[in-house]
Amino acid sequence: MAVITILGAGMMGSALSVPLVDRGHEVRLVGTPLDRAIIDQLLAGGEHLTLRHPIPAAVRPYQVEQIGEAMEGAEVVALGVSSAGIGWVIEAMRPHLRPGQLMTMITKGLVYDGESLAVLPDVVRDGLPPELVGQIHPAAVAGPCIAGELLRRVPSCVVLTGRDEPSLERLRDLLHTDYYHLFTSTDVVGVEACAALKNAYAMGVAFGAGIHAARGGEPGSIAMHNYESAVFAQAVFEMSRLVVAMGGDARAAAELPGAGDLDVTNNGGRTGRFGRWLGRGLSRDEAVEKMEGATLECLEIIAVMREASRGLVAAGRLAAGELPLLDHMAEVVLDGAAVNMPFARFFGRGRAVGNGA
Amino acid sequence: MAVITILGAGMMGSALSVPLVDRGHEVRLVGTPLDRAIIDQLLAGGEHLTLRHPIPAAVRPYQVEQIGEAMEGAEVVALGVSSAGIGWVIEAMRPHLRPGQLMTMITKGLVYDGESLAVLPDVVRDGLPPELVGQIHPAAVAGPCIAGELLRRVPSCVVLTGRDEPSLERLRDLLHTDYYHLFTSTDVVGVEACAALKNAYAMGVAFGAGIHAARGGEPGSIAMHNYESAVFAQAVFEMSRLVVAMGGDARAAAELPGAGDLDVTNNGGRTGRFGRWLGRGLSRDEAVEKMEGATLECLEIIAVMREASRGLVAAGRLAAGELPLLDHMAEVVLDGAAVNMPFARFFGRGRAVGNGA
Repeated sequence: MAVITILGAGMMGSALSVPLVDRGHEVRLVGTPLDRAIIDQLLAGGEHLTLRHPIPAAVRPYQVEQIGEAMEGAEVVALGVSSAGIGWVIEAMRPHLRPGQLMTMITKGLVYDGESLAVLPDVVRDGLPPELVGQIHPAAVAGPCIAGELLRRVPSCVVLTGRDEPSLERLRDLLHTDYYHLFTSTDVVGVEACAALKNAYAMGVAFGAGIHAARGGEPGSIAMHNYESAVFAQAVFEMSRLVVAMGGDARAAAELPGAGDLDVTNNGGRTGRFGRWLGRGLSRDEAVEKMEGATLECLEIIAVMREASRGLVAAGRLAAGELPLLDHMAEVVLDGAAVNMPFARFFGRGRAVGNGA
Repeated sequence: MAVITILGAGMMGSALSVPLVDRGHEVRLVGTPLDRAIIDQLLAGGEHLTLRHPIPAAVRPYQVEQIGEAMEGAEVVALGVSSAGIGWVIEAMRPHLRPGQLMTMITKGLVYDGESLAVLPDVVRDGLPPELVGQIHPAAVAGPCIAGELLRRVPSCVVLTGRDEPSLERLRDLLHTDYYHLFTSTDVVGVEACAALKNAYAMGVAFGAGIHAARGGEPGSIAMHNYESAVFAQAVFEMSRLVVAMGGDARAAAELPGAGDLDVTNNGGRTGRFGRWLGRGLSRDEAVEKMEGATLECLEIIAVMREASRGLVAAGRLAAGELPLLDHMAEVVLDGAAVNMPFARFFGRGRAVGNGA
């Protein structure tokens, strides 16, 4: 039994409490300033406001002011914030960290500083107090895991990635259950790049279903599946190119963090709903309005990646034109272009051959 | 303009006539002995019996007795039979082949002779009259392409694979349209192995949706997507292992022939429907009965692969236990075992770590 403190009471951070409680840990759930209503309702014995479902009664909810108390004696700190909250959580937890603590995160994102593209576990590491660098090894969880399904104990396979193998092993031992399966990887760049990128690519995969709907088509066996699956394969292809350009292992794109997470995002995620609105012909702003305030990580990732991919090309790490799908998605959501998939430029130049476009 | 003769008037062979007619070719469609009713109806001006849709009026239908006439002057021969018809088509076309003809096929399958596992373009090559070996280079089309969607000109990306690059280039030039995009690859083993294997793996991906339905669940955002996507990623992983063991390039598993075709088969294919019945708890025979006579390539592939994978392990080309998903699917459909996915044994031993099973 360990004390595990989750920082951030959003859907995924809160759902993570289920396997942790099942393993007999003492689980403390700390809301961010944005989670106040969620924590209030949990403290009053109600269900989780955004999951719309109870979480285990053994979970102890804390408002943000109590973060010091909640982190006292914690063996594991789990960051459950969205990418927008990563700066906040680094500052908020700093005074309460101690050497030898284990740290993991479900936050996904990529940060580009004009020169290099960083994954979030490295951003968090760089934000540790100097005396704790090398004492705490931030790890992260990636792969196909819808929060509402983990909450209901649907069998799920995820990747736990970090650079310190003993920390990964210890975390895996503490987190796994007979329905929450963790596989470890030290390829932090490959795993975390895919975890972020899949949100962007899921939008593009969904364009086809939107086009089908706009033409009056019904969902079914005959729709725009050929279109969607071509984009799916191109997405895996581009993720593998980007991972390699960033110094990771291309296999991450083909396994749980890439293909697996892209698949789950297409089937259960809000990004797909957003992409379908764009495929139907709505403008970016119209599509955003349809999403009624849902966080759209894809927009942030696409904006970051447009700039970063130009930097990678300039640095000779990517060839120009290797990412036609990403480029087109950026045209659609950043420049207001209509959806018009550049299939003929898919699958690279040289090895595969397009149809003469 | 070329004369292109399609041998086999099933759904995919017949749908291929649409881009060919759009490119202005003279297209002749020859039925097998099993396609007699399809050809009769086309000759009478009716729609295609199994596609339940008209095919272009310019297509010239032929009964099997007229195969010689239909192949006269054909620049391209396209094999449109199912894997069960491959022996028949080799014999039927032999007397009518001539040097320099181009040949492609949409047939998918793997043949194991107790020692090695062969892909169908090589089986066809070995069946050519001796004087034509080296004169005709059988190619094949793989990747995500539902016949009913190609028929309706849904944008589709496929891979054209063969060992003779000039033949591939010429075929691509003849076949492509602005909605039918062909990418070439000389990795015949990788591409064709995935084209066959994806039918087996799509069955396993569908187990999750069946389990969800058996528990009274409705399709939606929260279902068994985590389960399905974990199996999807494991399927790509196992396909890549098998491709490498057979001498192909692992990338085929991550691109159109593997991940892309698996995705389309899950979304639009009958194999998924069969897998869902198994996931609901039906026995193999009960599930087959529900499919009302539909061809189930997955059963044939799984039977071949159980034997072949044992051979690959014995030959030291695969490690024992590297294919837990394939092994489990074989237990379900060949041994009558209940569905009980071995998640803890996924993603290999050594590189990734399971949860202690």
